[in-house]
Amino acid sequence: MKIAALLTDFTDADGYPAIMKGVMLGLVPEVQIIDLSHSVPHQDVLHAALLLGRSAPFYPAGTVFVCVVDPGVGTHRRGIIARLGNQYFVGPDNGLMTVVYRKTLAKKEPFRVFNLENPAFMLKPVSSTFHGRDIFAPAGAHLLNGTPLEDFGAEVTNPVLLDLPEPVKTETGWVGEILHIDAFGNLGSSIRAEHLANNAKITIILCGQTVSGLLNTFGEGRQGDLTAIIDSDGYLAVCVVNGSARKKLNANVGDSVLVSVSSDGSAS
Amino acid sequence: MKIAALLTDFTDADGYPAIMKGVMLGLVPEVQIIDLSHSVPHQDVLHAALLLGRSAPFYPAGTVFVCVVDPGVGTHRRGIIARLGNQYFVGPDNGLMTVVYRKTLAKKEPFRVFNLENPAFMLKPVSSTFHGRDIFAPAGAHLLNGTPLEDFGAEVTNPVLLDLPEPVKTETGWVGEILHIDAFGNLGSSIRAEHLANNAKITIILCGQTVSGLLNTFGEGRQGDLTAIIDSDGYLAVCVVNGSARKKLNANVGDSVLVSVSSDGSAS
Amino acid sequence: MKIAALLTDFTDADGYPAIMKGVMLGLVPEVQIIDLSHSVPHQDVLHAALLLGRSAPFYPAGTVFVCVVDPGVGTHRRGIIARLGNQYFVGPDNGLMTVVYRKTLAKKEPFRVFNLENPAFMLKPVSSTFHGRDIFAPAGAHLLNGTPLEDFGAEVTNPVLLDLPEPVKTETGWVGEILHIDAFGNLGSSIRAEHLANNAKITIILCGQTVSGLLNTFGEGRQGDLTAIIDSDGYLAVCVVNGSARKKLNANVGDSVLVSVSSDGSAS
Repeated sequence: MKIAALLTDFTDADGYPAIMKGVMLGLVPEVQIIDLSHSVPHQDVLHAALLLGRSAPFYPAGTVFVCVVDPGVGTHRRGIIARLGNQYFVGPDNGLMTVVYRKTLAKKEPFRVFNLENPAFMLKPVSSTFHGRDIFAPAGAHLLNGTPLEDFGAEVTNPVLLDLPEPVKTETGWVGEILHIDAFGNLGSSIRAEHLANNAKITIILCGQTVSGLLNTFGEGRQGDLTAIIDSDGYLAVCVVNGSARKKLNANVGDSVLVSVSSDGSAS
Repeated sequence: MKIAALLTDFTDADGYPAIMKGVMLGLVPEVQIIDLSHSVPHQDVLHAALLLGRSAPFYPAGTVFVCVVDPGVGTHRRGIIARLGNQYFVGPDNGLMTVVYRKTLAKKEPFRVFNLENPAFMLKPVSSTFHGRDIFAPAGAHLLNGTPLEDFGAEVTNPVLLDLPEPVKTETGWVGEILHIDAFGNLGSSIRAEHLANNAKITIILCGQTVSGLLNTFGEGRQGDLTAIIDSDGYLAVCVVNGSARKKLNANVGDSVLVSVSSDGSAS
Repeated sequence: MKIAALLTDFTDADGYPAIMKGVMLGLVPEVQIIDLSHSVPHQDVLHAALLLGRSAPFYPAGTVFVCVVDPGVGTHRRGIIARLGNQYFVGPDNGLMTVVYRKTLAKKEPFRVFNLENPAFMLKPVSSTFHGRDIFAPAGAHLLNGTPLEDFGAEVTNPVLLDLPEPVKTETGWVGEILHIDAFGNLGSSIRAEHLANNAKITIILCGQTVSGLLNTFGEGRQGDLTAIIDSDGYLAVCVVNGSARKKLNANVGDSVLVSVSSDGSAS
């Protein structure tokens, strides 16, 4: 089975993702096309990179991800096509693949990145505003049809990578920030489970509020309470059980998150 | 053909439904996955139960519905996997399947419900916040691959069922309520066609407004008029032709709907 | 591969597009169903006709488009099923297919239109409010199964066509209007590339603002600047690089767009 997964900031309002699908189906009639999301905030490359990093590991080997969040369309930014581990990624060279790329490096899995420059694999003429249709969708389709990566262009050794906000160690714990707020209003921070000592008591300060302790599950919290949890992607998250922490704290991506860790069990 | 249909309140903003699809495609590469909806209002189990009850009958025998509207994730609520009639349903045991379950009973079709407790059919580790990914999607996939229902866990004889608001008979007709408001602003009530005598003249009072008579089709109404109709799911609905009854009446789910029936043709 | 593409104004909130998919999968289990969009503004036939005209050319021959934006459901408007070029279109006879139909005529490709009136290819009973489910989805499915167009009903020689706003020639250029505003806030006008002399200097006035010159690509513009471009569909569009021209100009569909063309290179 050939699987393509699409990630864009196009919304479905204008048919842009559907046009990309039409192009791909014309080249690979048997492809199954899945939407990762088309609701990325416009031009928000970091949001898309995090979403891709969270989703791709659950897809089969060989999946081709076609990702178009592209504030630089029509400039000299490159398009790239990459093998990262056992999956494939196509899109503008603007950092969209940063999280997947870093995970691949960390796991010492194979990776190769190529420049999308061979016009044989583009629609003609190439528009200046819709490379998703004219370059990225056809590249993904040709890849699914067996075109070797090397045929798309020269190897790229310096793909653009985003600076992912990393938490900073302090005397008593960590300073991080809110990385992602999901549709439920859960606040995902840049601090990961591995930063927090096992079974440690922690105190979190964000948006002027203090949250004490880490729940193992929402079931331990009371409806409406502000709670902290390790989320399903391994990040420390601040949540309201069956409510919105975003609304309760008027929180935004980028807001600071301070964590004090006390491994002896006393609140710090 | 193996068909899975997904119903969640996740929206597509964060990639959560797509992660469930990746998990399923990894286990059943040939599955065709359809979105019922991912726009259920957060935690609104009744809304999802009605949507499922309205949609499932139009799907082929053997379809596996994976449904995750789950305010109790991380508590002790069970997960269940059920055969209802000739289709299959997977999700938290919180009443999501109530409408389908009741229809199955009413039609005296076969049904069996099992506890989702066999860790052999879960991702590892199971997170405390994303059972859609870790329990429900894999269960649906294993079912599509032929795993017998009995292998998932013990039989459940008391699945959680919602109290569906039922209309109450009055001297002159029925008292019901608004059950569902669709994206067009049509107000679906809890009163069904079978409650209304054939060819009866009816008068409806809701939100302080009176609507007289039942149209056979929108075509009989004038643009902008408040009208009543039997909707495509068999419920009495109050609508504005090419407009929004929700906006016109400032109506909400749960608002009362009073119907007076006059079988002799006189307005009552 | 059998491909169906759905276009509606249903949103995904209530499961209506999913119900249509269930109906089709029951009749054509192997069909691959793609969403063009379900976010057409309610009852906005022109919006849908433009979206369809922009998307369909990128789909393979044989694709069946099932299109339901249907302010006249339940009136005496016809349903139609059409071959336009090498693709098929099903929906209400209200002008939805206008853009595709005109392109087919312009290219002198074959076309035939038939009335959807044979009850053998409808669900029973046919509701008065959901012909997408009861008439159009089954018709598309039967067509994919090989039912000849002639079997659906009598040939239609006068399908309803929308008056597409056409730009008007002036002494110094063209007067057009805003036809489509996309989710990014780009303002697509009714003026096409072929109206503008090659390499001409143009000046555009809309919403009380003047835009000079036509960029070849967004890359030539500065972030936040109001710019004009030929969009990926061949229309003159006014945009803000990485911003929203809709917001910047408080623009609406239907607003006038004045273009002065100066083929000698001087601003006019």
